[in-house]
Amino acid sequence: MVSRRLDVGILGATGMVGQQFIMQLANHPWFRIAWLGASERSEGKKYRDLAWRLSAPRPAEVDDMVVEAAAPGRAPRIMFSGLDSKVAGEIEREFAAAGHFVVSNARNYRMEQFVPLLVPEVNPDHLKLIPLQQQAKGWKGAIVTNPNCATVPLVMALAAARHFEPARVMISTMQAVSGAGYPGVASLDILSNLVPFIDGEEEKIQTESLKIMGTLQTDRVVPHPMVVSAQTTRVPVINGHTETISVQFTNKPSLEDLKAAFRGFTAKPQQLGCPSAPKQPVQVMDEPNRPQPRLDVEREGGMAVFIGRVRPCPVFDYKFVALGHNTVRGAAGAAVLNAELMLAEKLFD
Amino acid sequence: MVSRRLDVGILGATGMVGQQFIMQLANHPWFRIAWLGASERSEGKKYRDLAWRLSAPRPAEVDDMVVEAAAPGRAPRIMFSGLDSKVAGEIEREFAAAGHFVVSNARNYRMEQFVPLLVPEVNPDHLKLIPLQQQAKGWKGAIVTNPNCATVPLVMALAAARHFEPARVMISTMQAVSGAGYPGVASLDILSNLVPFIDGEEEKIQTESLKIMGTLQTDRVVPHPMVVSAQTTRVPVINGHTETISVQFTNKPSLEDLKAAFRGFTAKPQQLGCPSAPKQPVQVMDEPNRPQPRLDVEREGGMAVFIGRVRPCPVFDYKFVALGHNTVRGAAGAAVLNAELMLAEKLFD
Amino acid sequence: MVSRRLDVGILGATGMVGQQFIMQLANHPWFRIAWLGASERSEGKKYRDLAWRLSAPRPAEVDDMVVEAAAPGRAPRIMFSGLDSKVAGEIEREFAAAGHFVVSNARNYRMEQFVPLLVPEVNPDHLKLIPLQQQAKGWKGAIVTNPNCATVPLVMALAAARHFEPARVMISTMQAVSGAGYPGVASLDILSNLVPFIDGEEEKIQTESLKIMGTLQTDRVVPHPMVVSAQTTRVPVINGHTETISVQFTNKPSLEDLKAAFRGFTAKPQQLGCPSAPKQPVQVMDEPNRPQPRLDVEREGGMAVFIGRVRPCPVFDYKFVALGHNTVRGAAGAAVLNAELMLAEKLFD
Amino acid sequence: MVSRRLDVGILGATGMVGQQFIMQLANHPWFRIAWLGASERSEGKKYRDLAWRLSAPRPAEVDDMVVEAAAPGRAPRIMFSGLDSKVAGEIEREFAAAGHFVVSNARNYRMEQFVPLLVPEVNPDHLKLIPLQQQAKGWKGAIVTNPNCATVPLVMALAAARHFEPARVMISTMQAVSGAGYPGVASLDILSNLVPFIDGEEEKIQTESLKIMGTLQTDRVVPHPMVVSAQTTRVPVINGHTETISVQFTNKPSLEDLKAAFRGFTAKPQQLGCPSAPKQPVQVMDEPNRPQPRLDVEREGGMAVFIGRVRPCPVFDYKFVALGHNTVRGAAGAAVLNAELMLAEKLFD
Repeated sequence: MVSRRLDVGILGATGMVGQQFIMQLANHPWFRIAWLGASERSEGKKYRDLAWRLSAPRPAEVDDMVVEAAAPGRAPRIMFSGLDSKVAGEIEREFAAAGHFVVSNARNYRMEQFVPLLVPEVNPDHLKLIPLQQQAKGWKGAIVTNPNCATVPLVMALAAARHFEPARVMISTMQAVSGAGYPGVASLDILSNLVPFIDGEEEKIQTESLKIMGTLQTDRVVPHPMVVSAQTTRVPVINGHTETISVQFTNKPSLEDLKAAFRGFTAKPQQLGCPSAPKQPVQVMDEPNRPQPRLDVEREGGMAVFIGRVRPCPVFDYKFVALGHNTVRGAAGAAVLNAELMLAEKLFD
Repeated sequence: MVSRRLDVGILGATGMVGQQFIMQLANHPWFRIAWLGASERSEGKKYRDLAWRLSAPRPAEVDDMVVEAAAPGRAPRIMFSGLDSKVAGEIEREFAAAGHFVVSNARNYRMEQFVPLLVPEVNPDHLKLIPLQQQAKGWKGAIVTNPNCATVPLVMALAAARHFEPARVMISTMQAVSGAGYPGVASLDILSNLVPFIDGEEEKIQTESLKIMGTLQTDRVVPHPMVVSAQTTRVPVINGHTETISVQFTNKPSLEDLKAAFRGFTAKPQQLGCPSAPKQPVQVMDEPNRPQPRLDVEREGGMAVFIGRVRPCPVFDYKFVALGHNTVRGAAGAAVLNAELMLAEKLFD
Repeated sequence: MVSRRLDVGILGATGMVGQQFIMQLANHPWFRIAWLGASERSEGKKYRDLAWRLSAPRPAEVDDMVVEAAAPGRAPRIMFSGLDSKVAGEIEREFAAAGHFVVSNARNYRMEQFVPLLVPEVNPDHLKLIPLQQQAKGWKGAIVTNPNCATVPLVMALAAARHFEPARVMISTMQAVSGAGYPGVASLDILSNLVPFIDGEEEKIQTESLKIMGTLQTDRVVPHPMVVSAQTTRVPVINGHTETISVQFTNKPSLEDLKAAFRGFTAKPQQLGCPSAPKQPVQVMDEPNRPQPRLDVEREGGMAVFIGRVRPCPVFDYKFVALGHNTVRGAAGAAVLNAELMLAEKLFD
Repeated sequence: MVSRRLDVGILGATGMVGQQFIMQLANHPWFRIAWLGASERSEGKKYRDLAWRLSAPRPAEVDDMVVEAAAPGRAPRIMFSGLDSKVAGEIEREFAAAGHFVVSNARNYRMEQFVPLLVPEVNPDHLKLIPLQQQAKGWKGAIVTNPNCATVPLVMALAAARHFEPARVMISTMQAVSGAGYPGVASLDILSNLVPFIDGEEEKIQTESLKIMGTLQTDRVVPHPMVVSAQTTRVPVINGHTETISVQFTNKPSLEDLKAAFRGFTAKPQQLGCPSAPKQPVQVMDEPNRPQPRLDVEREGGMAVFIGRVRPCPVFDYKFVALGHNTVRGAAGAAVLNAELMLAEKLFD
């Protein structure tokens, strides 16, 4: 479908999300890493001379690339942003104004009126916000965002069951330390322990999920009418956010219909053949003690959501456990899939 | 109040719960360990020659005690049972029939009609089931049970807020490995991992809580009309079950009234001066990231329940985090407090 | 080199080592899994219906294979054994007597006079013991063993530096829980803890290393004259044994010569193109804080040994840190490489 | 022995070591916390309003104390220093020059010629360096230091066996994360992992141990002639440094004599009745799998050293495992015991 690989750049290329971007984009069939940007501390250095923190080895194609300042100019048109939210606001705006498409993992613009908060399987039509964004901001470029890492497994499950009209959702998360970046969580805080608080996380889950599941109208996304309540906890797990979820539906399905809806869920990125799209985005596990983060999170390249223990809930209709890879499906992989959808939808033409 | 220490025995004295019983009863002001019983494998051995698995050193007073067979005969009238549920059914019945008061941590008789499922701060009046039990069974002794370890923090919190009439409760637990005994959870299953399934645990929480909060009528306990839905997960924590809870009340209190109810909760064991009773059974922590099991679980001798993050819930009325010590307040300490209440109520006279 | 894949069988196919064998042999260019044997409990069941404990998904090619009793008969000529040492002695002998080549990970026959204790890069000539074994035992088949998982990193390093004549070796190991199988180490023993004792492990390291590095003479292996002292500790790591090692050489090299010897080490399996042979069997890492098990153990398919911090030792000549994958290079991968060497050396013809 | 409690101050009172100082000095029979000093960030704040990071609750006696600037003036004569080494050099000198006795845990002055590097059981006579220090520096006060946390278990063991003249020592450590302070080790670096490198640690063990075991001569300490080689590793343990040690003696004892020397070790702080002195400073455990940090480190208030697995070493004479509490016996408790010895020796008169 794509005849040659498009050049892309990475903002925040030395951070944890930036390194995950490099993993997702190395040898990508549609994109080619052509530019790395980071803070002044790393500017001018070869990438091989900077700390690499992932367990997978650093892809050779970035070894000799020289890190540049995080400013437009020589950067490619398509930019992935793994910037920290402290600086993302200004830098991403600067790039969008200069004509770049910024596919961002930062939280800064997620809830802005004309910015798509995109999950390709859930709300691909929200990309139609882009012309409105360009008009409103006077930009030639645009910003497209992906949700918070803990929001993804929830909305993937709810979208698969959208037909049954989720009305009330209770979610309690157990989130991996990699979600806090590096150095992130201190070992003294988490060894044989857990911390039942992640600053701002519950609000993100409660609001982002409504926008993602929302309906695009003339000039805005009308949030989904469901109500979501989240409690979030950090646990001593490396990768993978696990979530216990209870849902009350307006059109309550049978247990078998709900499972079938999860299993049969497929959407635009699957139909368009996006390379990062998992064949089956929501996978139901039948073993009574699954999914488990250490055993399951890397399956399907970390891009699917794993659901287990689907069963009736005495208070709501059904409850289940969901697992998603927070640094892949919940961060860099999400953004790459967003860009793949945008390319397949000819938004970069 | 008590002039001399009463002799007590421990059934299942070599297991994890039995060892915790020894910790709770060593130097107890009202009770004196006079008898240790275990399976044939340990029979006839000095206790000092058996494996000790707690981090606190073994109390010297049991060092030279010889373990006996788990059968009535020379055993004292008051027996604590840390027996495994596989054998507790038969052995406890045998002791009760022989005239012993069996204060048990096993699950076997918890839901039986005439057996008190006792939390001294919550349902001390359920002890009135004992004469009915004795009559129905033709026993001179009796069996009194404490709930599942994960049920205790929930019912302590709900009992403190009982006046507001809890109607719907959603709970997701993160449970320590010590709750599964020894060897219990394999390290390969839990290092940097979690297991979102504990066999039978959700049912226990959902049913035991209703009986404990239930109303004693002529010849039975009428379960509380609230509905509880539980999801339970094993996490890599040594001691302490942490629970995220959302509650809808029939008489919704203000946030401040709910916190005040938690903080002001006091009950019979406090009034009677039971030695193991925490002065303040439900403690509210104001720090945003507490309670945490490693930092808080040993406070108040492990006998209080710690509650944090009390806040409005978008779906129900309020949500909060609760923490309880599973092997103390959720097992051996619970049974010892049960026996203290029984002694203070002159049930052993 | 090999025109068609040879049928092989796996003894103990349901255990941890057996499952690792399946991982190593699925899609193997020279071998094809044709037979799975296990204890009576699993006999007659489809492999897909048995518990799978590795994080990598179960290879599809074994899904529908039916597990057979661990007895010769319909089993292929080449057998891999992941049997527990309690049963390996008898079953492996039975297979060898029946004409099978048993490539075993069990410890039972490792120190027998005519049994090769093989590390293909270190002592490939010890395969010449096989005819002696067959003659002495009257077997048409034979048993070939690989060493204890903690011995492999040590002998790989010492073999690379063999020319300098290691004379005295001090080693302290920090070993992963997967080395103890499943359920193996209880989580209560190892969470935020370590256990400075692994039954029998120190003796294995101290004796197996001398046999592996020993010299083949007419009818026996003369142990290497070096002296080795080991201390072994279990630590809360999933995969990878890390070892701190100090060595005194008879011909002390310069630091650079030692590093060059590590880096330049290559041997028979590399020359013969064995598929599981790492290109560079001993890899020296220059970062001051490497190797680390979580970051490095899966590199090179888990078949290389990683060495870091090579530096002078105030007491002996040099000290360094070595890391090896205990269930791959230290178990199933080791046996598969042994079989590859045997095939390349035409021992199966 | 002491009629009233002497006022003491704590420098660096808000850090991890400072908080441990507060734990060791609260309710101390000889000392009373009268002054808390820290960096500008905390100056003027009540101690109760600052973060408390230990699992034991904050002692009430410091709740309302106001933190002062880390400068002499109103501070008591006896000062404990838990300062970071980046600032300890200047501040401790300033206090000593102003007439304070600074009992320091910082590393800055440990190896200075006239500064005692004190372990009360090992080298109490090194306190005689104080007048030399005062003369050389022109100070009325003085600085006394305790060793690095990993050095303490080693020198306690070696001092108990001093009579047999240790000549060559090989040590490999497995050190708890609390040794790195807070936030210290990142969870991503240590969950299910270990890091075989702690910056500067090996040099400290190798040199500090020689000074501590050294002989006081006219104007200096002549280092002990033994040679020590250390390898140091960070492991996912909360508290407790575990060390595998091999020793070659000049006068090789029998195994029983060595164990008896460990068990019978007693010294000045025991004779003088120092309150923090463990009755038996070196405790030999007979169980084959002990000591273990999680089970044993808090015994004896964390002030004893636990030794296990004493056995012959094929390369040297004997090998064994030692465990010490790094933040108690290896830091704050060590300094408090130093001050107790100084008081008992009338150095503060």
